[in-house]
Amino acid sequence: MEKGTLLYEGKAKQLFQTDDPEVIWVEYLNQATALNGAKKDQISGKGELNNQITGLIFDFLESKGISNHFIKRLSTNEQLIQTVDIIPLEVVVRNIAAGSFSRRLAIPEGTPLKTPIVEFYYKKDELDDPMVVDDHIRTLELATTDEITQLRQMALEVDDALIELFDSIDIRLVDFKLEFGRQKDGTILLADEVSPDTCRLWDKKTNEHLDKDIYRRDLGDIIPVYQEVLNRLEKRGE
Amino acid sequence: MEKGTLLYEGKAKQLFQTDDPEVIWVEYLNQATALNGAKKDQISGKGELNNQITGLIFDFLESKGISNHFIKRLSTNEQLIQTVDIIPLEVVVRNIAAGSFSRRLAIPEGTPLKTPIVEFYYKKDELDDPMVVDDHIRTLELATTDEITQLRQMALEVDDALIELFDSIDIRLVDFKLEFGRQKDGTILLADEVSPDTCRLWDKKTNEHLDKDIYRRDLGDIIPVYQEVLNRLEKRGE
Repeated sequence: MEKGTLLYEGKAKQLFQTDDPEVIWVEYLNQATALNGAKKDQISGKGELNNQITGLIFDFLESKGISNHFIKRLSTNEQLIQTVDIIPLEVVVRNIAAGSFSRRLAIPEGTPLKTPIVEFYYKKDELDDPMVVDDHIRTLELATTDEITQLRQMALEVDDALIELFDSIDIRLVDFKLEFGRQKDGTILLADEVSPDTCRLWDKKTNEHLDKDIYRRDLGDIIPVYQEVLNRLEKRGE
Repeated sequence: MEKGTLLYEGKAKQLFQTDDPEVIWVEYLNQATALNGAKKDQISGKGELNNQITGLIFDFLESKGISNHFIKRLSTNEQLIQTVDIIPLEVVVRNIAAGSFSRRLAIPEGTPLKTPIVEFYYKKDELDDPMVVDDHIRTLELATTDEITQLRQMALEVDDALIELFDSIDIRLVDFKLEFGRQKDGTILLADEVSPDTCRLWDKKTNEHLDKDIYRRDLGDIIPVYQEVLNRLEKRGE
């Protein structure tokens, strides 16, 4: 497998062609961003940690029957994924109130939600990723009614699996953001990454943040925290 | 029927007790507000116009089989309504892109929507009435799943009826906001008002605003415009 030309550069990853049109070569970057890119820093070691964590989590999700784009890890900061056409929706699942959700609805951070909440956001930097309802998704032709149903269902399946995974390493899964993509035949796969950049993770005993809120809220250095999450995942796998 | 003590004062109406606990006496005020109350003015004649317009529209909706709280008009600026427990949701129906919807999703104002869009907003001034999805409504215990289904269905029925009504007086119904309430036995009634304060109405021939956007956007005096809507509704009824 040869690494080809750069296809796309996002905030945290670069995607490269390979000699197989169905396979993409991903390089995880050391860039951290928050506030829709208004806050940005280079943090050495972040790409390696998220690449490794995402690989372990996608393997776990696969073992739980959740189809995803991950093929295999190539190096500490590179992985191969299947080519998909990304659906421009951020699918957010919330188990515990936190962040913007707490502020918007005046539900104090840390309040457990009786049932998981699924939200969709339109991935559009210029618009600051606005929250959308099903009617908006159809009007914008981002996904069909059947696809919306499937996205919601897959997101809740991922939630069940991730709660189990993180619970086993003494972490509470507060909320997380997923992205999905379509294969040529229309099959929907979980895509993007699942890491402390995209999940809120709280230590079960201390309630300490083990996620990007450390960076968003200027609470310290994210590297030891992300390393702790990787260590626990690796120890679990032994 | 006696007008009793003041029960509630909103931005545009005062509600008074009557000697019948099932009946409320409403007085429409001459106050205009926008931007969640940040812009506020006294506009003589506005209360009378909205009271009369709302009365005619609620009578029309009743004739179309849509249960609502309106009993009868008492004077130019007063009406009697049935007591309901207001559900703290603003139910917005959109037929044509306009206002905040256009800005949030970058759909140019005036774009017809293929199918009507229904949105829910949590009525909470302190939070600036945030948009909510069904999961939020359930979590906040604002309405049950069955009630949400019913609200959406009633809102679309109102949309069909109002499109017909306004079309017959050469007005395009762009969007509107509804509120609903529960009677003691749980029956849901359309409540609040339906007027140029709560609807976007565009003249079919000139596309001129015949609604509160005149006030919101500082386009002139609302009184002749609201009077024009009332005149057309009254002429239709003759």
